[in-house]
Amino acid sequence: EENLEAEGLELELEDKSRMEHREPMAWVADDAENEEMSCSSLWCFDSENPFMYDKELIPDDSLYFSSTSNKNYNNEFHVVEKESFLTSAQRSRIVWEVLMRTPYETDSGSKTGIMRLLNNGIYLSGYPLHDGPYIGKSVKKGEPGYCERTLLYNEWAQWKCWYKTQPLPLIRRYFGEKTALYFVWIGFYTTVLIPAAALGVLTMIYGLATMKTSTPSKEICDDTVGGNLIMCPLCNQQCGFWRLKDSCVFSMVVHLFDNPATVGFAVFMSLWATMFMELWKRKQARTAWEWNLSSAEHSLEMIRPEYEAKVFTYKFNPVTMTFEPFLPFWDKVARILGVNSLVLLMLFSVMIAVFAVIVYRIIIVTLMFSSETLFWRKYAKIATSFTAATINLVVIVVMDRIYRKLAGKLSDIERPRTQREYEDSFTFKMFVFTFINTYSSIIYIAFFKGRFFGHPGDTITIFGYRQDQCENGGCLFEVFVQLGIIMVGKQVFNNIYEFATMKIMIWWRVYWRARENFVPQQPNTRWEEDYNLETTDSMSLFDEYLEMVIQFGFVTLFVGSFPLAPLFALLNNVVEIRLDAYKYVAQLRRPLTYRVQNIGAWQAILKGLSFVAVITNSFMIAYTSDFIPRLVYMYRYSKDGSLEGYINNTMSYFDTADFTNTTKPNNMMLDGVYVNQCRYQDYRHPPGSDEKYTLSLQYWHIFAARLAFVVVFEHLVMFITSLLSYAIPDIPRSVQGDNSK
Amino acid sequence: EENLEAEGLELELEDKSRMEHREPMAWVADDAENEEMSCSSLWCFDSENPFMYDKELIPDDSLYFSSTSNKNYNNEFHVVEKESFLTSAQRSRIVWEVLMRTPYETDSGSKTGIMRLLNNGIYLSGYPLHDGPYIGKSVKKGEPGYCERTLLYNEWAQWKCWYKTQPLPLIRRYFGEKTALYFVWIGFYTTVLIPAAALGVLTMIYGLATMKTSTPSKEICDDTVGGNLIMCPLCNQQCGFWRLKDSCVFSMVVHLFDNPATVGFAVFMSLWATMFMELWKRKQARTAWEWNLSSAEHSLEMIRPEYEAKVFTYKFNPVTMTFEPFLPFWDKVARILGVNSLVLLMLFSVMIAVFAVIVYRIIIVTLMFSSETLFWRKYAKIATSFTAATINLVVIVVMDRIYRKLAGKLSDIERPRTQREYEDSFTFKMFVFTFINTYSSIIYIAFFKGRFFGHPGDTITIFGYRQDQCENGGCLFEVFVQLGIIMVGKQVFNNIYEFATMKIMIWWRVYWRARENFVPQQPNTRWEEDYNLETTDSMSLFDEYLEMVIQFGFVTLFVGSFPLAPLFALLNNVVEIRLDAYKYVAQLRRPLTYRVQNIGAWQAILKGLSFVAVITNSFMIAYTSDFIPRLVYMYRYSKDGSLEGYINNTMSYFDTADFTNTTKPNNMMLDGVYVNQCRYQDYRHPPGSDEKYTLSLQYWHIFAARLAFVVVFEHLVMFITSLLSYAIPDIPRSVQGDNSK
Repeated sequence: EENLEAEGLELELEDKSRMEHREPMAWVADDAENEEMSCSSLWCFDSENPFMYDKELIPDDSLYFSSTSNKNYNNEFHVVEKESFLTSAQRSRIVWEVLMRTPYETDSGSKTGIMRLLNNGIYLSGYPLHDGPYIGKSVKKGEPGYCERTLLYNEWAQWKCWYKTQPLPLIRRYFGEKTALYFVWIGFYTTVLIPAAALGVLTMIYGLATMKTSTPSKEICDDTVGGNLIMCPLCNQQCGFWRLKDSCVFSMVVHLFDNPATVGFAVFMSLWATMFMELWKRKQARTAWEWNLSSAEHSLEMIRPEYEAKVFTYKFNPVTMTFEPFLPFWDKVARILGVNSLVLLMLFSVMIAVFAVIVYRIIIVTLMFSSETLFWRKYAKIATSFTAATINLVVIVVMDRIYRKLAGKLSDIERPRTQREYEDSFTFKMFVFTFINTYSSIIYIAFFKGRFFGHPGDTITIFGYRQDQCENGGCLFEVFVQLGIIMVGKQVFNNIYEFATMKIMIWWRVYWRARENFVPQQPNTRWEEDYNLETTDSMSLFDEYLEMVIQFGFVTLFVGSFPLAPLFALLNNVVEIRLDAYKYVAQLRRPLTYRVQNIGAWQAILKGLSFVAVITNSFMIAYTSDFIPRLVYMYRYSKDGSLEGYINNTMSYFDTADFTNTTKPNNMMLDGVYVNQCRYQDYRHPPGSDEKYTLSLQYWHIFAARLAFVVVFEHLVMFITSLLSYAIPDIPRSVQGDNSK
Repeated sequence: EENLEAEGLELELEDKSRMEHREPMAWVADDAENEEMSCSSLWCFDSENPFMYDKELIPDDSLYFSSTSNKNYNNEFHVVEKESFLTSAQRSRIVWEVLMRTPYETDSGSKTGIMRLLNNGIYLSGYPLHDGPYIGKSVKKGEPGYCERTLLYNEWAQWKCWYKTQPLPLIRRYFGEKTALYFVWIGFYTTVLIPAAALGVLTMIYGLATMKTSTPSKEICDDTVGGNLIMCPLCNQQCGFWRLKDSCVFSMVVHLFDNPATVGFAVFMSLWATMFMELWKRKQARTAWEWNLSSAEHSLEMIRPEYEAKVFTYKFNPVTMTFEPFLPFWDKVARILGVNSLVLLMLFSVMIAVFAVIVYRIIIVTLMFSSETLFWRKYAKIATSFTAATINLVVIVVMDRIYRKLAGKLSDIERPRTQREYEDSFTFKMFVFTFINTYSSIIYIAFFKGRFFGHPGDTITIFGYRQDQCENGGCLFEVFVQLGIIMVGKQVFNNIYEFATMKIMIWWRVYWRARENFVPQQPNTRWEEDYNLETTDSMSLFDEYLEMVIQFGFVTLFVGSFPLAPLFALLNNVVEIRLDAYKYVAQLRRPLTYRVQNIGAWQAILKGLSFVAVITNSFMIAYTSDFIPRLVYMYRYSKDGSLEGYINNTMSYFDTADFTNTTKPNNMMLDGVYVNQCRYQDYRHPPGSDEKYTLSLQYWHIFAARLAFVVVFEHLVMFITSLLSYAIPDIPRSVQGDNSK
């Protein structure tokens, strides 16, 4: 019976590893350091050569020392010899290393490692065991029934702990450094989000408070000033003329995100992103020092079994004097090119999806504007924004799922040599795709929408419809809607999906196994319990990081148009921490522990994002918001330096006689009066001028001012951020001092 | 007699270290591994406790292993045991470490290290010896009379070797890794300069070839088109009107640096700088791998003796359980602030010097323009440029010398804890100062000169003189003169100065010692010979790096106006390599060897420079050159898309009746005719217009175009450079593979 064998093996292992540690540690749950396997072959007993353990475990004293020096900083220097021990995470790592190196054929010794056996399907799976059920009463260390998993569940993974600091030393002890570092990171990120969220809320409150009193909205809503201006139709033929006061409500909403406070907030967030990176480097250095991670993990540098199995060209290695698998240069290049062109194809399909939504937008807006009902006309833009954003959200979520499946396969085709190469390639592919997938619709609205629109009477069309154009007051409102729906929607959906699928999968597995075995109800062994849980692998933190990095993008890239982004991120993360904690404690098999010094490629990606954020924010303020035109108006065109008359100033005149046949509205009347002249938002010469409908001097003024703002903003922020990163040392002074020992 | 003692000590040491190596190495010169000291106290013999060597040298097997693994890559794996040896550089390092740690009081053992003895003046100095005179015949390894120094001199340090590859393994063996890495770097930099220099020359040739045919110069020189235009006076009162053709020669010279080719070259150089950094990282990684430098040198992290001697506040260190010197936080802050305000003061004095030269410029130009002689009027600008640049050069060189003396003292006042802290602080101070000192006059000319000039009747003055203004055709020519003189002048001066002072100092010391000792002519011992040479310390490479980094700045920052910069840099470096080589082989005491992994802070500084270069180049093309105005003219204002009529288009009209009393020229006649209207280079409304002398629409067009160019150029180049740095892995594939062993 294979199960019995497996359990026999387990006992064997237990004795051996006990011998190595040489000191009884009563408080450690019995099976914490054991690997467990479901054997499907009869010779699995031979394969575990008991001799191997002594040979492999004894030279492992580096780990032993790392444990003692870890104690050092607790000032327990003098008792090190007596109290020294390995954490359960370290023990599981040791056992795994042993399994990795144990030969499974007694004669040759060349075929080693559990990885091959797992890949060949001889073993079903191998994983460290949890140290007990997670539901239970917290018991103090040293007392009988002490179970770290229960402790973690009670003190960390429950909702009621949402405001508590995470028990990081325990997490590290139980799950190992790599997993713990993720929780350090998300905890740190969430903390740093608090001031950003607070300032974001203040910005929003400022917007709300000044909504009614802002001059542009007042002028739009006031019949005597701008409300009665007759506006040109917003689409060709079907749409009619309208009065500016129709967009009164809309203009007030727009003011929420388009006021001087949001500009200040965008500047703040650009600096915040840099500060975050700099402070994180310090935090990470301190954590690495406290956890004694300065000796890096080299297991990622080992040649992948897949590589050894599938590469059949060999090269002589002068160091080891053996022939090693080696992919010829051109083969490698061909594979990378092939895979990357597939990735480009996927990106292209994302673009098509975005374009489809643009077309949807244009059609719907046209339909709604041509409707007779005032209600539809009034809310046309808003309704379109919301529905289009929702469609985008669905597309994004679906594409993400599809691509996730694809990326792993594609990275395999590239034949990465080491696990690190694999992870780097996978990370890059996933990040680029998710980035484009998530942000492309927002980028389109923020920077391209309506930019190519000329003036009424223009005949440039897309599929016979007039180009997509933003409402009076810039595209900032649409960016806001798009961001809000995609960001909040994606997070909520992801959390629910994650939670639900996990539950269902576990239930399904329990149910299936129960049906298969027909074993009368008897208490399951620990390994059976754990086998029912979701699997973990070295990439299982990948999705968590990716989700957070994309969220970081929402928080920094377009924050000028969505000051509430940090708040939503903060709320999401409070939930996310506990959800991830619950997942790791209750729903996943215990992960193999890895020792890593830092968060790896994600750090470079975050740095890149905070760099791009400076660019997007400067362009958003300069181009998407009305900030610059208003400033230019106040300082050059206004009589008294105020914004009075701004709305009238932004509207150019159009002679309705200049409509072509295809653009002329079907209804040339408004309120029963024939319209001779209408207004549209742009800076162009009036119909009477020599150069009618060409861009006016004011346009060039504003254009120059926008560009000057971008140049000044970017250089200033970059200068400040370089100063910051120079002034804040990456390694805290205290750590630096003690490292020199 | 102390000399005897010292030599006795030398013999003692020799025996001991020989014993350690255990294998006779006949081909190594006898005294290569010995430290030598001039004792000035009688108890120096006791201090060298022979017991210490065994204790200290035996655990040094890491060095031993590094030597064997170094052999590995030569495929001599199987003979490692027999052939293993330490290079002379490694042996001198070992001996130094021993000296550093040997206690000099036999009872307590707490007072250790030669550093304290040197600082107290008990020893005069301590240094590794050269292995023989440098002049001699090259002898093959293994033959009698083999001397690495002679070999280096003959094969590397002589002028006739200027085209040869440097014998880097030998340099490393003789001088150690830190010095060798400098030569690797300068060699690499010089090689990479070749394509840049070639392209720069081509750019210059293009300029020369098109000089006569370029439309703007042709129009300026042609009487029928632009030559006869009456130009407004270039200064107030004294200057008279002049005809545009007077600046004909000048406009042709300007064309040399202000043509489309230089724009292309500036783009190329921005990318070149990035490529240089990326390729250098690879080269460095490869070198570190070949030289087995992956285990970093920690000697820089040791607490400086100065710190221990001068800091009297102590803190308890929980790790070592001892009280250690520790500077309180506020004391540290006060020191840093104090020192940095002094640095700011120095920078301020640099600014004053630059300003003084500006005033000089204005006065001279005014004087020359008011001269009656046509010759002076014609060459006024050029002559002023040359003399002003020369004055700037002198100021720069003098300030450099003064500041160099100051910076070391200032860094000492800051009380850096470790040698690394000291070096970082010193490097930063020196670099910032040298940067500002060298480039500020160029930056002024390139970006500020003449920007605040209004139009001829303006009354804004500096000390009663009209503002500094560039000649028709932009300030690019003046930047060229300034750059050329400062760059070439500084390099030539530095090389001569270095060479000459070194020679004189050595001669002086030999002469002085000869007079002092009155010893009859007898052959000097090796250590006496070496004592006469210049001293070396851990900072002796600093000046070399600084010089090269400032040169890198010349090559990249303003290359748009001086395409020959890479060529001059290349020529200089070819000389520099051999000069430095000669210095190290013949004029300096043999330096202590250090093992370093990389070029340290210089890498970050170079990266920063190549970043700044993108910004300066984009602004220089956009603002300083005439590139953008010409493009705008061609695409918007020209009738046939050519540059014809450009010169006339750039000149605004001025009504001479609008001169104020202070600005009106004394002579209102030109060639006997009263001048009613004159022209000046700017885009302003003509006198007849409503808004006379205010900036015209074309000005705003060009202004917007300039800014747009900056934005597009910077983002494009940054995007390409990030792509490049992503695509080029920092560590070559082959090295990566073999590191995983």
